[in-house]
Amino acid sequence: MAAQPTLLLALDLCGTFVFALGGAWTALRAVRLDIVGVVTLGMVTAIGGGIVRDVLIGAVPPATFGDWRYLAVATAGGLIAFGSSRWLHRLSVPIDVFDAAGLGLFAVTGASKALEYGLGPGQAVILGAITGVGGGTLRDVLVRQVPAVLHSELYAIPAMIGAGITVATIRGGVYGPAAAVIAVAACFLVRLLGVVFGLNAPAPRKAPPAA
Amino acid sequence: MAAQPTLLLALDLCGTFVFALGGAWTALRAVRLDIVGVVTLGMVTAIGGGIVRDVLIGAVPPATFGDWRYLAVATAGGLIAFGSSRWLHRLSVPIDVFDAAGLGLFAVTGASKALEYGLGPGQAVILGAITGVGGGTLRDVLVRQVPAVLHSELYAIPAMIGAGITVATIRGGVYGPAAAVIAVAACFLVRLLGVVFGLNAPAPRKAPPAA
Amino acid sequence: MAAQPTLLLALDLCGTFVFALGGAWTALRAVRLDIVGVVTLGMVTAIGGGIVRDVLIGAVPPATFGDWRYLAVATAGGLIAFGSSRWLHRLSVPIDVFDAAGLGLFAVTGASKALEYGLGPGQAVILGAITGVGGGTLRDVLVRQVPAVLHSELYAIPAMIGAGITVATIRGGVYGPAAAVIAVAACFLVRLLGVVFGLNAPAPRKAPPAA
Repeated sequence: MAAQPTLLLALDLCGTFVFALGGAWTALRAVRLDIVGVVTLGMVTAIGGGIVRDVLIGAVPPATFGDWRYLAVATAGGLIAFGSSRWLHRLSVPIDVFDAAGLGLFAVTGASKALEYGLGPGQAVILGAITGVGGGTLRDVLVRQVPAVLHSELYAIPAMIGAGITVATIRGGVYGPAAAVIAVAACFLVRLLGVVFGLNAPAPRKAPPAA
Repeated sequence: MAAQPTLLLALDLCGTFVFALGGAWTALRAVRLDIVGVVTLGMVTAIGGGIVRDVLIGAVPPATFGDWRYLAVATAGGLIAFGSSRWLHRLSVPIDVFDAAGLGLFAVTGASKALEYGLGPGQAVILGAITGVGGGTLRDVLVRQVPAVLHSELYAIPAMIGAGITVATIRGGVYGPAAAVIAVAACFLVRLLGVVFGLNAPAPRKAPPAA
Repeated sequence: MAAQPTLLLALDLCGTFVFALGGAWTALRAVRLDIVGVVTLGMVTAIGGGIVRDVLIGAVPPATFGDWRYLAVATAGGLIAFGSSRWLHRLSVPIDVFDAAGLGLFAVTGASKALEYGLGPGQAVILGAITGVGGGTLRDVLVRQVPAVLHSELYAIPAMIGAGITVATIRGGVYGPAAAVIAVAACFLVRLLGVVFGLNAPAPRKAPPAA
């Protein structure tokens, strides 16, 4: 059973908004930016992962260009982040929460869209993870941070868990609003547990010297 | 009325040359490079934005791969930049002028090509801006600078003005060489005014601390 | 005569493995990473260049997503790199050798695939070089190094030599396992000569000041 289009769209727009808001805040913490820079980085965070996914599965022009609501929602998130930037030092908890929510929403929608386009289950899990982490990775590269996915608390692993539950329930014929909520929540909770407890994936035995 | 193919090609080749020259110079100011690096960064600046646009609208292989003149013109620009690198300290004015000209030319051709491929007017304006700023952004990422579009004097806004005039005149049925010149010139002048007067888009009220 | 599909696949899988191993080692020398980061960067190095090529020639979803063996081989390379990271200080010679081998293999397969998709000989040489240097360039950007292709000992030039021999022998109707081995070996040897003797492409007469 393919994913329900309306459900996919609703989840995708939610993810776009929370990623634009959280992504713009994260960018503001790293570098000084003007309003164009803040909104641009919010949009890159919000729609970058989905664009990479759509290019890779051949769904061009990407959904975010074909439907004006994505651009409107992403722009709104970036503008709200710009307007609230003076309270930025109080926002580290909401930033982590919004980022974890966006990660879960996009992992689920990315995996479900990859299956719709005929990719295999393993590929769909990877594309779900790319949808979730891609936008933030592009933003980190643009503001010259090492992307969180490479060194941070559990980040790719929760995205693959959310995408994996999505693929399993779609293939098992039981995907629907309830399964989607479970998949998003699983990714969200594992990610937040990683942040709260500072969990990381295993690191090499001996730290290599910095170059 | 669609854009005239010959006009589109002529503007595109002009933009490719000035961007390759200005882009290679900018790269030389930031890092020490050999001739391969200079020519590569000139080419990335010159054809990067158009390639991103073509991939996003589904026009693959990109025009720059299908027509050898793009690669020849971009290589020539990079080689001229390499040969003139000893006078680099005297070149800051020409670099800004060439960059502003390329920005205007690509914003106009990018927006016009996006309309040809059936995208909506809002999307065409954004794709015009991406065509204009994309190549320079890729170059800045490769030489580890924060991309100019994120923090600099008016950069994305003039590109959107040029793209917006293009979309409006094509939709209004009055697009032609005169309208194209006006759109390029509007972008060019707003960009240069930004450089001359150090104008920036509004920044957040309180500067966030650098990470 | 088109390239032989089995030969193309065998060369491509070899290149994927050696690039994943060498790419993950290189990443470990630059930044501290956990196991997800090491495997991710090995995969990016191994399949990044081919994905860029496939997107540019319109072969989506990319071969690396359609055939699970690419992902399996790349993951294995990344895991072996992670497991051997404590001996990293002794590995600089193998890293250079593996990297040169991957460069040759990918330059040859990239050029041959571009011809198969109907691109001209000049474009095929450039796409072969992009396939060879693309993955390492993406990895370097993610770990905030200036990409080797921009400043290092001969890197793009050997890739273009390997791709050039491939295009010439395919067009001449004499391509086969022997020609492929010669093309890979030529790239491999020129690259290693560059590393051993510290050869670089010509640099500008006067070093520009760092920004």
